[in-house]
Amino acid sequence: MTRYRISVEYCGSGLVGWQRQANGPSVQQALEEAIHAFCGASPTVYGAGRTDAGVHALGQVAHFDIPGEPPPETVRDALNFHLRPAAISVVEAAKVDESFDARRSATGRRYLYRIFNRRAPPALLRGRVWHVAKPLDAAAMHEAAQVLVGRHDFSSFRASICQAKCPVKTLDLLSVMRKGEEIHLKAAARSFLHNQVRILAGTLKLVGEGKWTAADLSAALAAKDRAAAGPTAPPEGLYLAEVTYEASAFDGSGYTGDDKAERQI
Amino acid sequence: MTRYRISVEYCGSGLVGWQRQANGPSVQQALEEAIHAFCGASPTVYGAGRTDAGVHALGQVAHFDIPGEPPPETVRDALNFHLRPAAISVVEAAKVDESFDARRSATGRRYLYRIFNRRAPPALLRGRVWHVAKPLDAAAMHEAAQVLVGRHDFSSFRASICQAKCPVKTLDLLSVMRKGEEIHLKAAARSFLHNQVRILAGTLKLVGEGKWTAADLSAALAAKDRAAAGPTAPPEGLYLAEVTYEASAFDGSGYTGDDKAERQI
Repeated sequence: MTRYRISVEYCGSGLVGWQRQANGPSVQQALEEAIHAFCGASPTVYGAGRTDAGVHALGQVAHFDIPGEPPPETVRDALNFHLRPAAISVVEAAKVDESFDARRSATGRRYLYRIFNRRAPPALLRGRVWHVAKPLDAAAMHEAAQVLVGRHDFSSFRASICQAKCPVKTLDLLSVMRKGEEIHLKAAARSFLHNQVRILAGTLKLVGEGKWTAADLSAALAAKDRAAAGPTAPPEGLYLAEVTYEASAFDGSGYTGDDKAERQI
Repeated sequence: MTRYRISVEYCGSGLVGWQRQANGPSVQQALEEAIHAFCGASPTVYGAGRTDAGVHALGQVAHFDIPGEPPPETVRDALNFHLRPAAISVVEAAKVDESFDARRSATGRRYLYRIFNRRAPPALLRGRVWHVAKPLDAAAMHEAAQVLVGRHDFSSFRASICQAKCPVKTLDLLSVMRKGEEIHLKAAARSFLHNQVRILAGTLKLVGEGKWTAADLSAALAAKDRAAAGPTAPPEGLYLAEVTYEASAFDGSGYTGDDKAERQI
C-alpha cells in the first residue's frame, strides 16, 4: 500500500460539501469513486477540512492509501479523467509517508471570502461570490477586524451545531482588502470553528455598512454567545484556499506553500 | 421616447450568443423581454458586437428606445430584476442622445482570451477558459504576435461564414501575458472579423507550443487563406471586454473607459 496526498480544487455549487452524505453528491464520494474506477481499490479519502454545501476549494488537501506504487502524475491524471464531468480537479498528487494525515498533520488553514460589491448582480461570478449591492468600506472592515486577531474564545462566531470541544482558537490573520468590484477577506489559523469564517464575514459586513464599530466587534467577542455576532454569510463566497504542513510531513515532492488564494481570482 | 445605453455583462454558457435566434436563449431576447416586463414597450435592442454562442462579455454595450424618461438607475435595476435568473447583468445604464448607436458609434473594441494552462483541468473556471494542458511559452507568443499588429488583410484569420465586406482591419493591440495559471491574450481594434480573435488565439497557441515561429505567422497572414492559419480556439475562453466611444457620443453620464478586462479576473 502507498499513501498519496492530493491537492484538490472544486466548485461547491450543487455539492453537499466535502463529506459523503446520503442526500447528494460530495467531493469525498466523487474522489472515492474515481479512485475505485482507476485501480479497483476502495479506500476512504480523508480531507483536511470539511467544507459545507456550496463552499469552494482552491487547495483542499486529502490523503488515501492504494495498492502498488503508481507514479503520482498517473494518479493525478487518472483521477481527473474519472472525475469528469464533476467540477472537481486534482491539481497535485504526491507519495507521502504513512505518518502523513491530511487533517491531523495540518499546521494551518487559509480561507478566502469573496464579497462582490457593486449595485448590479454578478453574471460571470454567480455562485462564486456573495453579492452585496450597497457600498462597503473595506478599510474600516480591515481596521476593525484586527480586534479579532489572536487567541480568543470564539463562541460568538461558531455555528450552534459546531462539534469542536473547545471554542478557543488563535486567529493568525484576518485581512480585508478591496480588489476592484470585490472585497477579499482572508483568514488564517491552525484550525477554525464551524462556520467561523462565514460568521466573521457576515459580521464584518455590518462594519463595512457603518452599522458596527470595532468596539461592537469586541463586545460581540466578549459575549461568547452566537446571538451577539452578525449573520452567517452565504456559502458561495467561501473558498478553502490552502492547507499548510510542516515541510517534514512530505517526502520532498515539490509542495511550494504558495498562497493559492491568489490563483484564479 | 428616450434612448438608453447599457453596459452588459454575461456568461455565454448555455446561450446561443448575442443575437436573437429561434434555436435557444440569446442575450438580445433576454434584454428585450426584460424591457417589456419593465415598461410594456417592445423595442429592438442593438448591440455593439454580435458575440457567438458560449462567448462571454464583461462590457458589451447596447442601446434601445423606450417611452417616457425613467432615471437610468431605475432602468438598470428593473432590467436586472426581470433578467433573473439568466446570467446576464446590466452594469450601467445612461440616457444618450438619439444619434448614439451602440454599433456604429463605437470607435474600438477590446477582447480578452483566457487560456488556462496547467495539467489539471479547471474546476472553478470550467466554461470560462480554454484549458490547454501542455505548458505554453507566453513570452514567445507575445513576441511573435507583434507581426500581426497593424493594418493587414486578415483573410487567413476570418471564419468562412464572415459577412464583412472587407478583410482589411487594423489591429491596434495584440498582447499575451502569463498571469499565474492563466495566459491572457488581449486584442484591440476598431472592429474585428468573424472569429478573428479565436483564430488568433488558436494560432498563437501553436507558437506557445514551439511548433510555429513569427515567420510562420507572417506567412499565414500573407497567404490570405483561412487554411493557412491555425485552428479556431473554443468560444468559452473569449470575452468581449470593452467597447469604446468618443466622449462626445455621450451626454456626460459617467462613462469612464476603464479597461473592463481587468475586472473579475
